[in-house]
Amino acid sequence: MFRITTWGESHGPAVGAVVDGCPAGIPLSEEDIQKLLDRRKPGSSAFTTPRQEADQIEILSGVFGGMTTGTPISLLVRNTNQHSADYDKLAGKYRPGHADYTFDQKYGIRDWRGGGRSSGRETVGRVAAGAVAEKLLLAFGIEFLTYIDRIGEISVSPEHFDPEEISRNPLNMPDAKAAAAAANYLKGLMADGDSSGSEIVCRVKGLPAGLGAPVFDKLDAKLGQAIFSIGSVKGLEIGDGFRVVGMKGSENNDGFTSVDGHIGKLTNHAGGVLGGISDGDELVIRAACKPTPSIFCSQDTTDRDGNNTQIQIAGRHDPIIGPRACVVVEAMTAITIADLLLENAVCRLDSLQKIYGE
Amino acid sequence: MFRITTWGESHGPAVGAVVDGCPAGIPLSEEDIQKLLDRRKPGSSAFTTPRQEADQIEILSGVFGGMTTGTPISLLVRNTNQHSADYDKLAGKYRPGHADYTFDQKYGIRDWRGGGRSSGRETVGRVAAGAVAEKLLLAFGIEFLTYIDRIGEISVSPEHFDPEEISRNPLNMPDAKAAAAAANYLKGLMADGDSSGSEIVCRVKGLPAGLGAPVFDKLDAKLGQAIFSIGSVKGLEIGDGFRVVGMKGSENNDGFTSVDGHIGKLTNHAGGVLGGISDGDELVIRAACKPTPSIFCSQDTTDRDGNNTQIQIAGRHDPIIGPRACVVVEAMTAITIADLLLENAVCRLDSLQKIYGE
Amino acid sequence: MFRITTWGESHGPAVGAVVDGCPAGIPLSEEDIQKLLDRRKPGSSAFTTPRQEADQIEILSGVFGGMTTGTPISLLVRNTNQHSADYDKLAGKYRPGHADYTFDQKYGIRDWRGGGRSSGRETVGRVAAGAVAEKLLLAFGIEFLTYIDRIGEISVSPEHFDPEEISRNPLNMPDAKAAAAAANYLKGLMADGDSSGSEIVCRVKGLPAGLGAPVFDKLDAKLGQAIFSIGSVKGLEIGDGFRVVGMKGSENNDGFTSVDGHIGKLTNHAGGVLGGISDGDELVIRAACKPTPSIFCSQDTTDRDGNNTQIQIAGRHDPIIGPRACVVVEAMTAITIADLLLENAVCRLDSLQKIYGE
Amino acid sequence: MFRITTWGESHGPAVGAVVDGCPAGIPLSEEDIQKLLDRRKPGSSAFTTPRQEADQIEILSGVFGGMTTGTPISLLVRNTNQHSADYDKLAGKYRPGHADYTFDQKYGIRDWRGGGRSSGRETVGRVAAGAVAEKLLLAFGIEFLTYIDRIGEISVSPEHFDPEEISRNPLNMPDAKAAAAAANYLKGLMADGDSSGSEIVCRVKGLPAGLGAPVFDKLDAKLGQAIFSIGSVKGLEIGDGFRVVGMKGSENNDGFTSVDGHIGKLTNHAGGVLGGISDGDELVIRAACKPTPSIFCSQDTTDRDGNNTQIQIAGRHDPIIGPRACVVVEAMTAITIADLLLENAVCRLDSLQKIYGE
Repeated sequence: MFRITTWGESHGPAVGAVVDGCPAGIPLSEEDIQKLLDRRKPGSSAFTTPRQEADQIEILSGVFGGMTTGTPISLLVRNTNQHSADYDKLAGKYRPGHADYTFDQKYGIRDWRGGGRSSGRETVGRVAAGAVAEKLLLAFGIEFLTYIDRIGEISVSPEHFDPEEISRNPLNMPDAKAAAAAANYLKGLMADGDSSGSEIVCRVKGLPAGLGAPVFDKLDAKLGQAIFSIGSVKGLEIGDGFRVVGMKGSENNDGFTSVDGHIGKLTNHAGGVLGGISDGDELVIRAACKPTPSIFCSQDTTDRDGNNTQIQIAGRHDPIIGPRACVVVEAMTAITIADLLLENAVCRLDSLQKIYGE
Repeated sequence: MFRITTWGESHGPAVGAVVDGCPAGIPLSEEDIQKLLDRRKPGSSAFTTPRQEADQIEILSGVFGGMTTGTPISLLVRNTNQHSADYDKLAGKYRPGHADYTFDQKYGIRDWRGGGRSSGRETVGRVAAGAVAEKLLLAFGIEFLTYIDRIGEISVSPEHFDPEEISRNPLNMPDAKAAAAAANYLKGLMADGDSSGSEIVCRVKGLPAGLGAPVFDKLDAKLGQAIFSIGSVKGLEIGDGFRVVGMKGSENNDGFTSVDGHIGKLTNHAGGVLGGISDGDELVIRAACKPTPSIFCSQDTTDRDGNNTQIQIAGRHDPIIGPRACVVVEAMTAITIADLLLENAVCRLDSLQKIYGE
Repeated sequence: MFRITTWGESHGPAVGAVVDGCPAGIPLSEEDIQKLLDRRKPGSSAFTTPRQEADQIEILSGVFGGMTTGTPISLLVRNTNQHSADYDKLAGKYRPGHADYTFDQKYGIRDWRGGGRSSGRETVGRVAAGAVAEKLLLAFGIEFLTYIDRIGEISVSPEHFDPEEISRNPLNMPDAKAAAAAANYLKGLMADGDSSGSEIVCRVKGLPAGLGAPVFDKLDAKLGQAIFSIGSVKGLEIGDGFRVVGMKGSENNDGFTSVDGHIGKLTNHAGGVLGGISDGDELVIRAACKPTPSIFCSQDTTDRDGNNTQIQIAGRHDPIIGPRACVVVEAMTAITIADLLLENAVCRLDSLQKIYGE
Repeated sequence: MFRITTWGESHGPAVGAVVDGCPAGIPLSEEDIQKLLDRRKPGSSAFTTPRQEADQIEILSGVFGGMTTGTPISLLVRNTNQHSADYDKLAGKYRPGHADYTFDQKYGIRDWRGGGRSSGRETVGRVAAGAVAEKLLLAFGIEFLTYIDRIGEISVSPEHFDPEEISRNPLNMPDAKAAAAAANYLKGLMADGDSSGSEIVCRVKGLPAGLGAPVFDKLDAKLGQAIFSIGSVKGLEIGDGFRVVGMKGSENNDGFTSVDGHIGKLTNHAGGVLGGISDGDELVIRAACKPTPSIFCSQDTTDRDGNNTQIQIAGRHDPIIGPRACVVVEAMTAITIADLLLENAVCRLDSLQKIYGE
């Protein structure tokens, strides 16, 4: 119901998104969107690609007098700093860990410049659309906290956890000490032309109970699609995630309690979802982000004709994906929640009666 | 394109599914479906609920002369062994780890008999639909291997891995020794009225390269929705999953190689998916299944009116969900692949020309 | 959002529908549905096929304690009076005006018994689903008036228009005199083994303004899909329909007027839809229904192998489709409106705030 | 499967569309699209609004090396000749026959400049998308003939029918004499500040048999949605349309015949669709287009506050919609057929085997 379509290639003229089904009456400006886009902007630290993109958003439709009108919102970002020549000599070879081979197998044709459609640059459109979703959710007090929890073997320590720290370091870790250690680790890898994996946590406060539907459109199922649709994600956990394998029911169950007439849970192993429906508790999701596949050592591969060869990638690449992907995870989560917020609003006759009268 | 709708409550007259968009011309009998249903049937071992259900499938439409006709396939299983009385005294209290509270919050009304729509019994329809999908996939040599990899702290050992063993033990572990140890572990838990989590692995061989679409309909994204739509799943990994967090790009990338003119990968950290599209390698997914929430010790909870109280669950319940959920994971995977197999068939002009001529 | 799936063949074991997305809290009984089914039941007059079907509805899920629960509603009607033998000798020949040829071309296989999936019997599921939609709409004062306006050259006279008459004559005409004349006309055709076309009018009162979306999901566009999805419909008009071709803007425009603070239109050439959105006025649609293709004279055709031959249809067939199709048009209209009623409820921030608070 | 999203307001910065699901490997240039856009361009004759728009198409994504890549095709046309001031004094009043009132009722906010989203200018995106669909269909020999059949009481005469004439007169009538008479009629109306309705015919040759699905996705049902989604359409006929009401089955049925081993129909009352599926014959659809609602006489209306008043429209408006809407009807038909062409390609196991092997 809150639907997004994205389009655009890394080295084409522009990338963008269309948001369809966004309710009318939400204040929305280009600044609202720019704020999120700036969180994924390249060129902002030692740990991001030096590709310089202004990533300047244009709203082309669906907003009038500073408010959404209920009609499709078209969002556009021009590409300005393509270096397609970097890719010329890679065009005929399959980069390991990339989608070159699978795109060729699927379509028989592929815009190889900068990874084309499979480039992480596609997520610009998602982040822009996610900013619209966040504006909607903000009207209901729904707020996001997204950060990097682990890089290599370096984890955020619960004792040092400080949400203010997230935006202070380029790795988006809520722990200054861990961030410093991770920065060192990454510098070592960069010296070797190598890259690192990372773990992203997204926590959402203020969700009403009731979001998500019992079977295929469970909140966690829709998040499953949303988060795994991000190119580098290889794992996803809701609440305790894989830790439940080693747990007993008596450890994993969250008892209910009532305080001042408000029912809540005593613990939150479930991560805010019961039976696929939000339970009013904090939503907690955790995504595993693979190391950047563009590394600068020589790798075994083949060309399009099936000849074995070596590939040596050059150009401009992030040594780690997670810190810039944080806002993508957040955007996709926001879009998912916005969609289910609309669905839930019409799942009861008494809700409809609040709108249409009896 | 291969669409399924399921319906039915645990203690209603029946459960079922409608499969829409299944190609015509696939041989399909009730036996084909029964075989999969029997893998999730209750009452078959010490580790499954003693609820006795024949789970007898009826095909009500869409098959003529033993072949699918291209029109909707309606599948129905009558419920026969409901003990609704077991639930009478639970009706007003929220069972921890169950969807009672969230259903009430969402809908204001809830069929509390046996968990109603949120019961695992809903998956009967999915398994039936998955059997149809598997018949389609079999025509293209696509085959599944699904098993339990871990229960509590007991893991299948790679050295003892024996696929033949999976159907020989009630826990569906491909390792007789691990299965025996896990059985002991479960018996101890059962004596305490407790339950265990588990880990399911599903591996798919024979997938053509090209399945999945670049952005929101990635193979892994669609699997994300499909697998997290199974009630007890709290985590999902594709390929190396969360292990990528600690890996370097040079460890995680799978090089390509060409053998006899056939391009393949040297390793399979990716689990058969690159850029959201199948790469022709084995698809490897891993799901974390939470412990059965119906345990027999007293638990803190509230009633519908918000009074704090204790709940004591009785009735018939599995001490572990994974072994019976294996076939559900497989069914959802098969449905997902069937859908993407159809999508991929029409993504190129030259494919269409094979069908319609030039 | 109010989604229906139908399934079933004319001579299979049953036909049915699944309604997904119906809000919780609507009183619903089998009697509510039976009432509409009885309006399309065969065997009820001289002008309907003598096939005797009880068309007894079973609700298999989604209703608890007499109320919808928000989960899928599975509806089933057993087939009981199939005479497949009537069709044996037709199996290899293409009946003119039927879908035999096109089904064979599309699927390569076809359940030819009684027309299989292409039989009008498929509409049982739609009528059952439409009854659910009507119950929802009734809660908002939305009511339907559906009737036959013309049979051959015999039209209902505006002067004799009497809605009470509709259910009093077997042709569902709101004009006793026209109904009598049409009955005579039909008897003559039946004597010749021939059949007649007819025109159905469906008028809906009580629609709130605002239903429908500006572009592809216009109210009239969704009705276009819904009504043309009924097998025999060859034309559809909204409001003045084809009469607008000969009109001037000054004749066709409906001025607005305000009476007691309530804005309305001075005329209703538009038929209740402006820019694809309901305007609060009466919705008026008109559908052209082709003559029953099963006639009893010899007709030119070919067999499946492409040999020219003659076909002589026997068996039990209605001499006119419209009177029994009235309730199908009404059901499809109700389903369409229900869907758009849900969509419209979430298209404004202030509507959402009525449900979730600010 | 061939999905389009359109966006944009009449007086916003641009209008556009995203085409998703277009197969890879189709030659596509901006010229291909421009050709269709020029057929709906304003300012080209005495009978179109003098608004001068270049309507210059930009392809922003999805095409590489002159070929579609299978990824979303983003199409954009900048607005350049807005005169928003013309609308300033209309902003508070509801124009009869327009969507002003219903948009306000639905959304509570409305971009009133030039009709905003409800403007016919929205169809620029559809025509651009339709041009992509036509390129796909052309690869299979599917061709369109679209024209005006009637304006007021002036009809094209079957004897003078000349398809070459369609592009020679500004009214797109395939009959020079009728076009001249209609031009005179329109000039008279224009002198009075009035407008006329018209009838559009779209005929499609070369369709393979088998397009469309048996129930809700019938070819005629999908066309019903597609054509009624065009703002001014009030009626739609397939084949004989409303003439079937007065026909007998023996007149309306199309017999089959086999000539040189190819099965076809003896007549085409059905208009190329049987049971919702294309029968290989010419597809014939007919749409009724209402008179332009923007007329220059004084009309009764109310303002937003519900005060009765008069409205006097000024500005630049077409005296007839049909001639420019022809290409919109054609575009929507092409999009519908493209979608069903893809669906039909995967409805049989043997089709899939042609692609994937056995």
